[in-house]
Amino acid sequence: MTTSNLISHISHLTSHNYAIIVAGGSGTRMGGDVPKQFLLLKGRPVLMHTIEAFHHSNIQPRIILVLHADYHGHWGDLCRTHNFIIPHQLVGGGETRFHSVKNGLDVIPGNTDSLIAVHDAARPLTSATIIEESYKAALKYGNAVTAVKSRDSIRQKKEDLSVSLLRDEIYLVQTPQTFQSAQLKKAYLQPYTDKFTDDASVVEQTGVPIHIVEGSYRNIKVTFPEDIAIAELLLEDHGR
Amino acid sequence: MTTSNLISHISHLTSHNYAIIVAGGSGTRMGGDVPKQFLLLKGRPVLMHTIEAFHHSNIQPRIILVLHADYHGHWGDLCRTHNFIIPHQLVGGGETRFHSVKNGLDVIPGNTDSLIAVHDAARPLTSATIIEESYKAALKYGNAVTAVKSRDSIRQKKEDLSVSLLRDEIYLVQTPQTFQSAQLKKAYLQPYTDKFTDDASVVEQTGVPIHIVEGSYRNIKVTFPEDIAIAELLLEDHGR
Repeated sequence: MTTSNLISHISHLTSHNYAIIVAGGSGTRMGGDVPKQFLLLKGRPVLMHTIEAFHHSNIQPRIILVLHADYHGHWGDLCRTHNFIIPHQLVGGGETRFHSVKNGLDVIPGNTDSLIAVHDAARPLTSATIIEESYKAALKYGNAVTAVKSRDSIRQKKEDLSVSLLRDEIYLVQTPQTFQSAQLKKAYLQPYTDKFTDDASVVEQTGVPIHIVEGSYRNIKVTFPEDIAIAELLLEDHGR
Repeated sequence: MTTSNLISHISHLTSHNYAIIVAGGSGTRMGGDVPKQFLLLKGRPVLMHTIEAFHHSNIQPRIILVLHADYHGHWGDLCRTHNFIIPHQLVGGGETRFHSVKNGLDVIPGNTDSLIAVHDAARPLTSATIIEESYKAALKYGNAVTAVKSRDSIRQKKEDLSVSLLRDEIYLVQTPQTFQSAQLKKAYLQPYTDKFTDDASVVEQTGVPIHIVEGSYRNIKVTFPEDIAIAELLLEDHGR
């Protein structure tokens, strides 16, 4: 099978569901010039691991990569260097994560019964199981937000005081966050506020109840330099 | 200075404040027979790193180690093997963390103006800075609970639904948790309930407001086997 045949074959399979991989932002928190999604994890950019996880799941969604326009050329170079041929559509990033996701949504046709997962580019350790459970639950409940229970006690701070919350009720939110297309598109028509820290908070604002599915403590976000070494450890342990 | 002189000298300096290091429990979550506080971190048991952190802080508290009675002999052997001579008082663990802390409190004299820090044995990466800030803030505010802001969005789940909480208000609680002696002792006279997930929740139940001090994301709890490798990475990065 030639490369172009392969791409066409895959595109056919992935025509119903979508995954928006959000790599917007300048990545300055890594303390260097390399945005975190390009850092090498086992010799390959974080972002390639992330895209592969979706591509290798049974869902095989159509993949939309939202990336700051400044990096489109660099990403193309990386794909050639690493012989990375998983088909995906490249879209420019916005001012905030909200605006980046909105840019991704803009290239998805309306009036479909498709499901759309939104996923952080910097979560390369997501698994086929997590991805498949997310789409399955979104089909059933309208949406599905991947989250893990807190392993720590939790306090809510109001001014100088704090109160304890019931740990069993508290979830740390990850991605993927998967939604019925119409639900997500409608939510992203709202004006931006800085309370929108993830897609679930945007959708919730329209009055839609949010359904949680259990993720994994391994599904970490690469945010600080030491996280790359931790991700490599977890990858080894995972036997991938 | 001989060993016995050293111990006597240190004991004098540490006569005013206390640290209860809680290693109770069977450690079954490690998936093996070795309780997590005994696992080797850079060649030495986790618990030795933890005790050293307190001993090397400027506070130099009197150290009380709460450990399941079944392990007292093993701990003595480990101390001899590793030539570990930091003075500490060994106390038997209780049925839950609450009962273990209570056992530790029982050996601290009442009617003093001392400060008592409670710390998880399985948090070996706590630092002198964190420890000193905790005692300082407890002196000023009556108590000080080490915690870090959540890096993830947070949801509170009630039955099948969930609501987003303001991420900036949510803290993941760590240890040390430090208290005025009378405040902590009074709180631990209450009957046990399973809502007591940490010392702050016990003290809060008596109506005392809880003060948060910023901890560190490095101050992890060794809970699962992969955490040892992560802790070693963080130790290397820390340059200790």
